[in-house]
Amino acid sequence: MPSPTQLEDFFAYLRIPSISADPARSGAMQECADFLAAKFSQLGLAAAVHATEGPPVVIARSPFSPQKRTVLIYGHYDVQPVDPESLWRNPPFSPVVENGYVVARGATDNKGQTFTHILGTEALLATGAELPVNLIYLLEGEEEIGSPHLGAFLAAHREELACDIIVVSDTSMVREGYPAITTGLRGISCLEVKVSGPRADLHSGMFGGTVANPALELSRLLAKLHRQDGSIAIPGFYDDVLPLSESERTVWRELPYGDAELLEATGSPKICGEKGYTALERIWARPTAEINGLTSGYQGHGSKTIVPASASAKLSFRLVPWQDPEKIAAQVRAFLEGITPNTVRVEVSYDHGGEPYYLAPDFPDALAASEALSEIFGKAPAHIREGLSIPIVMLFRKILQRETLLIGLGLPDCNAHSPNETFPVAHIDLGIQLHAALLKRLAAV
Amino acid sequence: MPSPTQLEDFFAYLRIPSISADPARSGAMQECADFLAAKFSQLGLAAAVHATEGPPVVIARSPFSPQKRTVLIYGHYDVQPVDPESLWRNPPFSPVVENGYVVARGATDNKGQTFTHILGTEALLATGAELPVNLIYLLEGEEEIGSPHLGAFLAAHREELACDIIVVSDTSMVREGYPAITTGLRGISCLEVKVSGPRADLHSGMFGGTVANPALELSRLLAKLHRQDGSIAIPGFYDDVLPLSESERTVWRELPYGDAELLEATGSPKICGEKGYTALERIWARPTAEINGLTSGYQGHGSKTIVPASASAKLSFRLVPWQDPEKIAAQVRAFLEGITPNTVRVEVSYDHGGEPYYLAPDFPDALAASEALSEIFGKAPAHIREGLSIPIVMLFRKILQRETLLIGLGLPDCNAHSPNETFPVAHIDLGIQLHAALLKRLAAV
Repeated sequence: MPSPTQLEDFFAYLRIPSISADPARSGAMQECADFLAAKFSQLGLAAAVHATEGPPVVIARSPFSPQKRTVLIYGHYDVQPVDPESLWRNPPFSPVVENGYVVARGATDNKGQTFTHILGTEALLATGAELPVNLIYLLEGEEEIGSPHLGAFLAAHREELACDIIVVSDTSMVREGYPAITTGLRGISCLEVKVSGPRADLHSGMFGGTVANPALELSRLLAKLHRQDGSIAIPGFYDDVLPLSESERTVWRELPYGDAELLEATGSPKICGEKGYTALERIWARPTAEINGLTSGYQGHGSKTIVPASASAKLSFRLVPWQDPEKIAAQVRAFLEGITPNTVRVEVSYDHGGEPYYLAPDFPDALAASEALSEIFGKAPAHIREGLSIPIVMLFRKILQRETLLIGLGLPDCNAHSPNETFPVAHIDLGIQLHAALLKRLAAV
Repeated sequence: MPSPTQLEDFFAYLRIPSISADPARSGAMQECADFLAAKFSQLGLAAAVHATEGPPVVIARSPFSPQKRTVLIYGHYDVQPVDPESLWRNPPFSPVVENGYVVARGATDNKGQTFTHILGTEALLATGAELPVNLIYLLEGEEEIGSPHLGAFLAAHREELACDIIVVSDTSMVREGYPAITTGLRGISCLEVKVSGPRADLHSGMFGGTVANPALELSRLLAKLHRQDGSIAIPGFYDDVLPLSESERTVWRELPYGDAELLEATGSPKICGEKGYTALERIWARPTAEINGLTSGYQGHGSKTIVPASASAKLSFRLVPWQDPEKIAAQVRAFLEGITPNTVRVEVSYDHGGEPYYLAPDFPDALAASEALSEIFGKAPAHIREGLSIPIVMLFRKILQRETLLIGLGLPDCNAHSPNETFPVAHIDLGIQLHAALLKRLAAV
């Protein structure tokens, strides 16, 4: 159990309503940054609150020794909005302990997970020993709104933030007692395809039947994106896909996330997808082609009998290691241009992309983290992945040129982003212990 | 050449700016109706101006004789708006004669074509003879805005408008010197198809690849509407289609409206359509399936990486004799429901429909009209069709239960609905002569 002081410190942090999405909370954002800086200073770390165009960024660092490796711990002090507030059993910024869980906005995401690191550093220093690594804390206040200023901040503070490895505790464990390292993230390639035909919408009575209908031709193009087996029919699309390892497949098959959970979560009539893969494999390790939107012709009430001049679709391709967003976009363009009949014109434009992420489980720091997690939880961590992107990981790789260990202490049912967010009280102590075990092993890599 | 009095009468009619779409013109609408009633009274017809919820309707009738057949001549005194007015060589409501053409808004559509009938009646009566038929004129002021009150008006005046045949001069000749009877109009069946999947838009990173994408499934459904040869793949769709007659095909092949004209008119890259038919055959006598609009997910700037909860398409089917709009809608629904996979839900809703129209060329009144046109133009009329619907024809069939002769004196290049609308001065005399020849022959049917 955490000591009353530790819990009270944590609660004080949770009480600050640091909702980054709410412009009226700028005072709370500053207060939260100041709170962290004061806490770091109290530990003896050199703390600074850096103004940005958004909420401040807090950097704290232990005394630097060139003999030690440097670990950067990233977290965010901003939280999600609380609405609908009526569904909270207690006010979201009045933390309580209920049945062994801290309940408050930010309990897990991300104040709880970050604060256990801070309490861990405090506990280590309280023994009078030196930290086994140079430690840098980087805490931002804009993660929940997409970290719009973090890239520029990292670039401007690149030397100050130079490190060997980055630790982020903002992901989930498999379940209580079963830790995880998130080793892969999907990337993305976003495009728009526009099919055009007549120079303006045509009267379907006067012209229907004699010219190609762009909405129909677009539909035909989109219908050719996949093969019968659910795989993507674009030549070369799978060329750079990292095959799933047998060990991943074995572990993932045991995870409690399958068709029943997906049906419940999505409300879809049926689960489907690429043949030969489980739902988790499809989300975490297989690329997809999705239509995000369709636009053409008349969309109002009733009907308007036209042959629309054009039709367009927003497409996004979730990518897996080591697919390249721009290479994929070029393949998509070539494919669509190649199958478009000469009765219409097609235009495929690339909007933006993001690279997939993968950290090999035998990457030295990942092995060290595995050992630390095994020691604390008495069980080897699962190497899982996420189906989405975590942009900060890509920023760290690009700007700081270092890898990130995604080691979360959240639970899948912690209500992150929802009312009555929780964090197990037991995870405070586990987090403190893990911090020590992790730094010790990372120091020795 | 028309006499100066006839031309001045016509010009007085053209000078009234009876734009039904413009609420500021209600005074002009009344003025125009009063002008017509005065003209009919001057001829000795019993004329009445009937108030409606829109512009007035003018009815005029010759003395009734139970021994004679009754012919109803329909026209509309409202005209299209004039914008862009800057493109007119002369003010649109200041008619002039240029190179043998009357130029003014409404010159052809429909004041010119209607007024030649009126001048024709005047000329007949001027001889002191009795008219060979009972004549009813029905002139409305809302045709250009869809005749919203005409159906109710016809129903309320059904007995007063009882007749044997209806004559409408509001269509085109093949070209100068080559008359036409429009014997067929396409009908329509309008539906919406909606495909839905998840209960809300899903994060494509968290769920993409495991549930069906409604926009993709909709595209796949739409891609199956047609066969490779351009025909429609819905079972039973062609069951009730009246085959093109060889005589129609022979005549139409000679008409000056083909791929080059369609390319010019539409701006489409290429002409295409159902295999085995010419462009005119496709427009006039073959049914179509068109997508009028597509809606799904995100349609704004940039991208939003979602699996949309639903996707929908507006569909319209242009129908030919004797396809039934509701039967077709039921076939479409059955087809789409049958091919929708169980990974999504589909909903097909019928919006509205209109029946196709066809008047057999050997229908007695049509034969009589052919003879009259042959006499006046020295050339047998082409039996042509239109690809669109003319709702008043269906109203006449439904409410008055009589057929309509569509005998227009307009030319394809008359700029109806466009700036500098024209009507050949020569067509005034031809119309006056045709009126007499037509009534004589219709009287003898």
